[in-house]
Amino acid sequence: MFTGLSAFPLTPLNDDRFDEQAYTGLVTRLVEAGVDSVGALGSTGSYAYLDREERGRVARAAVRSAGEVPVIVGIGALRTSLVRALAEDAQEAGAAAVMLAPVSYQQLTDEEVFGLYEEVTADLSVPLVVYDNPGTTHFTFSNGLYARIAELPNVAAIKIPPVPLDPSAARERVGAIREAVPDHVSIGISGDSAAATGLNSGCQAWYSVVGGTVPDTVLPLARAALNGDSAAAVAESERLKPLWEMFAAHGSLRVTAAIAEHLGLVAPHCLPRPVLGLSNADRERVARLAEELHLA
Amino acid sequence: MFTGLSAFPLTPLNDDRFDEQAYTGLVTRLVEAGVDSVGALGSTGSYAYLDREERGRVARAAVRSAGEVPVIVGIGALRTSLVRALAEDAQEAGAAAVMLAPVSYQQLTDEEVFGLYEEVTADLSVPLVVYDNPGTTHFTFSNGLYARIAELPNVAAIKIPPVPLDPSAARERVGAIREAVPDHVSIGISGDSAAATGLNSGCQAWYSVVGGTVPDTVLPLARAALNGDSAAAVAESERLKPLWEMFAAHGSLRVTAAIAEHLGLVAPHCLPRPVLGLSNADRERVARLAEELHLA
Repeated sequence: MFTGLSAFPLTPLNDDRFDEQAYTGLVTRLVEAGVDSVGALGSTGSYAYLDREERGRVARAAVRSAGEVPVIVGIGALRTSLVRALAEDAQEAGAAAVMLAPVSYQQLTDEEVFGLYEEVTADLSVPLVVYDNPGTTHFTFSNGLYARIAELPNVAAIKIPPVPLDPSAARERVGAIREAVPDHVSIGISGDSAAATGLNSGCQAWYSVVGGTVPDTVLPLARAALNGDSAAAVAESERLKPLWEMFAAHGSLRVTAAIAEHLGLVAPHCLPRPVLGLSNADRERVARLAEELHLA
Repeated sequence: MFTGLSAFPLTPLNDDRFDEQAYTGLVTRLVEAGVDSVGALGSTGSYAYLDREERGRVARAAVRSAGEVPVIVGIGALRTSLVRALAEDAQEAGAAAVMLAPVSYQQLTDEEVFGLYEEVTADLSVPLVVYDNPGTTHFTFSNGLYARIAELPNVAAIKIPPVPLDPSAARERVGAIREAVPDHVSIGISGDSAAATGLNSGCQAWYSVVGGTVPDTVLPLARAALNGDSAAAVAESERLKPLWEMFAAHGSLRVTAAIAEHLGLVAPHCLPRPVLGLSNADRERVARLAEELHLA
């Protein structure tokens, strides 16, 4: 389950309520495109903004729409007891795996983050993905902490932040993590602009933001890299560079939401306020890119 | 209401549940000590870790215990609609004011933060404190954004992060904010180690972490500074330096919780996991400091 393209759909809102119909449409597109797994309630799925009841509805809708495709459900929250409750809800909904980021308000210590994973994994019946996203959690994992957490029961994968774009630095980075954690723990890349480099450097999975909305656009990159054609993967990533530049300027969530809104897959203003999405000028740029890059 | 010592009590948990009895005791101590206001559900009150129902209970308990002392209630949350609901709850509970930090998961833009305050202040019947805490929100206000938000209805105060410890740099910093916002908007200092410098530089209030647990310890500093005896305020702050050093090393929340636990004001392990509190060695240091510095 922790190889290939894991596609992370938005959780679209409509007038501040979960838009289940649009969400079902997004997940169905992913299944039809042939993604390897669906990542429900990732950062792209706005998990941190939704309450427990909403998150239960999203998880159930994802599993129902994904059919045979495994669904990984995000269970991150600030408080350990809520994380444990969300883990139960996700498993009851039929999640094939759960994914946990050390969300913080007070800056967390290594011991606190280890304790969080220790408590949560002790109760699990499904595998867990360690979700390392320093840009949103403001916590930085060391390789030593990866190693300690990877020894816990049910830890099956690590979703790492973008690797350096220099290929040898990327290989060194992925190689060091590979040495630190047991072989049964998959290493996957996130940060779409670093996907080709990450996959070419030994990452086994790509946890993709834009792939959750336009899977046909990113599958050639994923397939090329995983089939060993690193040059083709890099070429595909180069082709999508204007998109990566917009991601860097505005955040991948806002740009991906604008793509989904432009393509009519979700209602306008689908993000949870206070997040506003793009300006009108940037939305026009997204519309042009959607055509030029054949986003689908 | 936005002058003098605003004391921020912990929201103690006992076995992961709100310990209302201990909380009532903490607030009662503040009233008896003569603080100028009580800051319920600040960062020190773990607001970000509590759900809406818990936060309603805390707000009601604070107002009930505070008697004539005004209670400022924190309403921060990631999603605007939840912030608005929390603002309603706080007002129904009898809050004299509310306090709002731009909590983030996705990094917020200036426009998004302005929009948050615009939406929330439009509905309010009580004054609002703009809560600027970049260490936890990971958002940095410019003076220009302070100025725009200060023009919104009901904005009555700004709680600023620590000023530089150099007195002239601190005066420059507070003076620049003072010039940016209307006179009716109070400027208050947070970061206990910067309180003397902040008050001596023109801040009108001190939003205090440790003052919410040991008010008698910090009132002399606040009174000296607000009476114009800046040297006495600095001397008091110097006296408490070993405490500020522990705050810098471990975070003021963990140290203050250890003080409250040591003094028997709350049950052991009163913080929301995954936050663990101090190690045993550091708790022994806290116990020694409590005696040496006469924390009370």
